[in-house]
Amino acid sequence: MTVLVFIDPAHPGGRVADPDAPQLSVLDPGVTRGDGVFESALYTGGKVRKLEMHLSRMAVSAQVTDLIIPSAGAWRAAIATAISQYDAAASPGAAPAESVVKLIATRGAESADGVHDYGSAWVTVSPAPELGRRQRETGIDVLLLDRGYDSTVAERAPWLLMGAKTLSYAVNMAAIRHAKRNGADDVIFTSSDGRVLEGPTSTVLLATRERDEAGREVKRLVTPTLETGILPGTTQGAIFAAAKAEGWELGYGPVEPKHLREAAGVWLVSSVRLLTPVNSLDGEAINTDAELTAELSAMVDSIN
Amino acid sequence: MTVLVFIDPAHPGGRVADPDAPQLSVLDPGVTRGDGVFESALYTGGKVRKLEMHLSRMAVSAQVTDLIIPSAGAWRAAIATAISQYDAAASPGAAPAESVVKLIATRGAESADGVHDYGSAWVTVSPAPELGRRQRETGIDVLLLDRGYDSTVAERAPWLLMGAKTLSYAVNMAAIRHAKRNGADDVIFTSSDGRVLEGPTSTVLLATRERDEAGREVKRLVTPTLETGILPGTTQGAIFAAAKAEGWELGYGPVEPKHLREAAGVWLVSSVRLLTPVNSLDGEAINTDAELTAELSAMVDSIN
Repeated sequence: MTVLVFIDPAHPGGRVADPDAPQLSVLDPGVTRGDGVFESALYTGGKVRKLEMHLSRMAVSAQVTDLIIPSAGAWRAAIATAISQYDAAASPGAAPAESVVKLIATRGAESADGVHDYGSAWVTVSPAPELGRRQRETGIDVLLLDRGYDSTVAERAPWLLMGAKTLSYAVNMAAIRHAKRNGADDVIFTSSDGRVLEGPTSTVLLATRERDEAGREVKRLVTPTLETGILPGTTQGAIFAAAKAEGWELGYGPVEPKHLREAAGVWLVSSVRLLTPVNSLDGEAINTDAELTAELSAMVDSIN
Repeated sequence: MTVLVFIDPAHPGGRVADPDAPQLSVLDPGVTRGDGVFESALYTGGKVRKLEMHLSRMAVSAQVTDLIIPSAGAWRAAIATAISQYDAAASPGAAPAESVVKLIATRGAESADGVHDYGSAWVTVSPAPELGRRQRETGIDVLLLDRGYDSTVAERAPWLLMGAKTLSYAVNMAAIRHAKRNGADDVIFTSSDGRVLEGPTSTVLLATRERDEAGREVKRLVTPTLETGILPGTTQGAIFAAAKAEGWELGYGPVEPKHLREAAGVWLVSSVRLLTPVNSLDGEAINTDAELTAELSAMVDSIN
């Protein structure tokens, strides 16, 4: 079951539409050029998690791609309408425990000063994929794949749209297909100069356990630095805030593959699949740590 | 005026549809992931130019992206229907001299063995953009922009889909916007190791004039090697064949920016805009050669 709501100036709360009926023009640059931006948020327990972080990140994606998107208020209103329809459509007592709220805005016409308004903008709500929930429990096997870019490209080449979440995800999807063809589940991209970047649809976390001078255990949570051009992970950000509150040390890359292999644990995190332990890299088992996974999972579950 | 024809098993000649009405699902991976392939061909003088080359290249794009697309015969039938509708709709004596035939296939559902059939596949015919025809006459100012990849990436990282013409064109469009914001018209991408690659929607050609031992002039036409991961240009291929027949020497990169600055002339070529002379690189005038432009244009005009 999917609910669809378009943002439409004529409908302040959003325009409810049939997701099974054709809704988009074949001339929409969202489809002809993969030219638009998106976000995926988790809807669970009656709440869209990290909604404001998703709206903020979408505003950054729009800015990087010279796209004027609907206001945060218009998105919030359309989301509220979509969720209310979605909840009403669920069989009593059988609403999915976890659902995905997806926001998409495609490029529209160009204004006189060269800025583009949006063409179409809509919200869908649908059940979260079963696969992601299962992987959260079992963990995943991951291939390290070269993303082709070096880790300094974002700074020198803004036209590559690093750090923007655009609809042009063909390479991300191809990398995951490549992993599956080779017996793995997912991918961690590396830069051509050997840095760990991100997953095609996730952020990379690693944890270490050390002893300080007084013999106390220090837990450290590390993620690659944003300077490498990766997407700022909303889930990573929320976990980092929770981990800091619980006394963990925090670190921001550079991360190299050897750091993944030496870590106490490695996880891919994303808004819908949440925290997924990595069991192996390129076919070789790496450390996993059930205690840390449980601790981080509890932090993830507490995200609002 | 645009004519739209879907490839549809229930309609052997293609299913004519209204391009101004919504036709696509918001859940189509073509729009949610920029996941599909396309081609743009020129329709002029009653003929779709280089149709078989476009169909061949689309088949390669589909293979690289693990996508099963309609057969060449199905495309040909849909194109014939679209053109016949287009011609019939044109005012008598006022048919556009040049039109664009665009073929698009988006990703559909996955089969048991992990291969994806197409989701939607369609043909549009519409008038060629005025801008491209004007640029062909005036020439263009070009910025050299770093594509972020080094020139060996295609070989080592097939998951980057180099050489496939996918719908994920957000970066290509962003590069052209960047050029326009900076007073230029178009872009030539360079690799991070300093090689000339291609334009966001075109192939790069350069020509030199030399004297052989006998004092005869030797004209040489050069384009970057495909090993750099660029798209094989159908127009470049056709021009090379014509130039060879007329006694030119042919060369395939590596090309560096200095070669562009030293050449007798530099052109961007593509199926719809055809042969466009480059007047300047990064704000500095480069050599142009009206005689060579005329000679190459005549070859382009003779392409079938």
